[in-house]
Amino acid sequence: MAEPGSGMAADIAEQPDSYARLLEAAAGTIAPVAAQIVAWQPRHVIFTARGTSDHAALYAAYLTEIRLGIPAGLASPSSITVYGARPDLRGSLVVGVSQSGGSPDLVEVVRVAGEQGAHTLAVTNNPSSPLAQAAELSVDVGAGHERAVAATKTYTAELLALLLLIEGVRTGSGTPAPEEQAALAELPRHAADVLPTARETALKLMETSYLAALAFSGADLLHGPLAMADPDVPVLAVVGAGPGGHAMRDVLARLGERRADVVAVGPSDVDGARLRIPTPQVDERYAPLLDILPLQRLALALALHRGENPDAPRGLQKVTSTL
Amino acid sequence: MAEPGSGMAADIAEQPDSYARLLEAAAGTIAPVAAQIVAWQPRHVIFTARGTSDHAALYAAYLTEIRLGIPAGLASPSSITVYGARPDLRGSLVVGVSQSGGSPDLVEVVRVAGEQGAHTLAVTNNPSSPLAQAAELSVDVGAGHERAVAATKTYTAELLALLLLIEGVRTGSGTPAPEEQAALAELPRHAADVLPTARETALKLMETSYLAALAFSGADLLHGPLAMADPDVPVLAVVGAGPGGHAMRDVLARLGERRADVVAVGPSDVDGARLRIPTPQVDERYAPLLDILPLQRLALALALHRGENPDAPRGLQKVTSTL
Repeated sequence: MAEPGSGMAADIAEQPDSYARLLEAAAGTIAPVAAQIVAWQPRHVIFTARGTSDHAALYAAYLTEIRLGIPAGLASPSSITVYGARPDLRGSLVVGVSQSGGSPDLVEVVRVAGEQGAHTLAVTNNPSSPLAQAAELSVDVGAGHERAVAATKTYTAELLALLLLIEGVRTGSGTPAPEEQAALAELPRHAADVLPTARETALKLMETSYLAALAFSGADLLHGPLAMADPDVPVLAVVGAGPGGHAMRDVLARLGERRADVVAVGPSDVDGARLRIPTPQVDERYAPLLDILPLQRLALALALHRGENPDAPRGLQKVTSTL
Repeated sequence: MAEPGSGMAADIAEQPDSYARLLEAAAGTIAPVAAQIVAWQPRHVIFTARGTSDHAALYAAYLTEIRLGIPAGLASPSSITVYGARPDLRGSLVVGVSQSGGSPDLVEVVRVAGEQGAHTLAVTNNPSSPLAQAAELSVDVGAGHERAVAATKTYTAELLALLLLIEGVRTGSGTPAPEEQAALAELPRHAADVLPTARETALKLMETSYLAALAFSGADLLHGPLAMADPDVPVLAVVGAGPGGHAMRDVLARLGERRADVVAVGPSDVDGARLRIPTPQVDERYAPLLDILPLQRLALALALHRGENPDAPRGLQKVTSTL
């Protein structure tokens, strides 16, 4: 029996290699898919995913709106799988995101979406999975076997694959612009919309240390949950240097009024935080690929400190079958 | 100074009257808006909201997909207000939902959406609010003045107004079908998708008792957070009698394996729950209008028991200004 946490530690450590591999392979694997999406000219994009992959899908939905100017959103599988919705999806692109590619509900959503006139794409870590087979096109994120049940390297590989795909659609050629490629080659600056990072951190803490952890955008925190904050509640604030980080300054001030115990994650010091976990200053779009790394390590260390084994959380399996 | 909780208690108690008023007024106020939406023939619908209204918007997005067959989703205001996204919204209907109609970020989203080619609609409790003025059309949910900061009667009035609107679009005439109106007249059966109820319950507990409460769909719970469940974690499970409730049976079995302390809310007994809060058996679409009522009372009682004043939660105001 392996030492508790050794699997998760190894998965976390592999992420720089996983980024390099995916960047290397992208011209051959992602560019043709991006070129096909350009030809399809979708009028809107619907992402569908569960758990960790849902946070990668949220990131991709933001990028699709901001970088491509195409309306994008997340679909709940249950409207189709449980309630039998059959929306008219002509002109839509439906993207299923799943590490295993094995969730039956996502397979069903992608299958029904095709019947309803959508073009479909699977983004998975298993190119022979049912999800990849159900979709017209698929992208393999190529993260290799993941040892721990709690996903880490497959999450960041999904982020990078989706970023490369969207930037490839943006240029129209399937390949990101040369300056984008140069920047990606060093995995660069600034703090993008940090919500997927916050949500994914909370999920990791729940999965591995069984702590009730909540994730909010700054705006959503102010719309109610702020009342919970007091000196006994630890707050992890992901604060980048771009527009998203700027919008967080007011939120930190409000947390300060409530004397919350704030630890910041980001490239520069912020008022109101007691401690800061430094991350590189990169373009906001790339920050979710970097900010999550120390937070994955935090979830790992916290689980071990509490005597838990994060490689095999109680009650969870790697592939989850849901309706 | 009024007794703590007297405002929230009065707001909660007014909900049956508020339903009756809105049903009475609908032919004059909601039907013309629904008829205009029929004429627009939107290809997809984007809801935008914050906090409590976000849960009403989630309900409406489900109904739009299932009852109208039109793809629908929730937009994050920040992609437009913070990141400057300008998606092509021709053929779209953008619906801003807000009790006060005063959130500047929602006003900005609706304004930009109009510029980008969308038709726009505001659903608010204040017909002269900036949001109502920014949109082409508006629906007044007519709940009257709300005493407590934590929204209750304005939430359920939003649910009902959105239901009436969507059912009016479904018939094509602006008015729900006669059998629907008959059913609505007694505020009827079954447990719709319960996610807005769970999310709204969690928000009420956070706002008024400062408890960290988490809301998940059954499927999302199994994708990770299930690991948190143990005999010390109270679980409130909203379990209807329709497809959504049926899908919850497996989830309750998994919670049972983890010996979670489950209280069910719904019309019939379920395995694995220690207690049940009974609610009427109504059509699933109507259940969110009823299931939330005992849970609002639970939030109120819990806050008072803990010595808090739910009418004026610490750190919150009635209108929240966010970017």
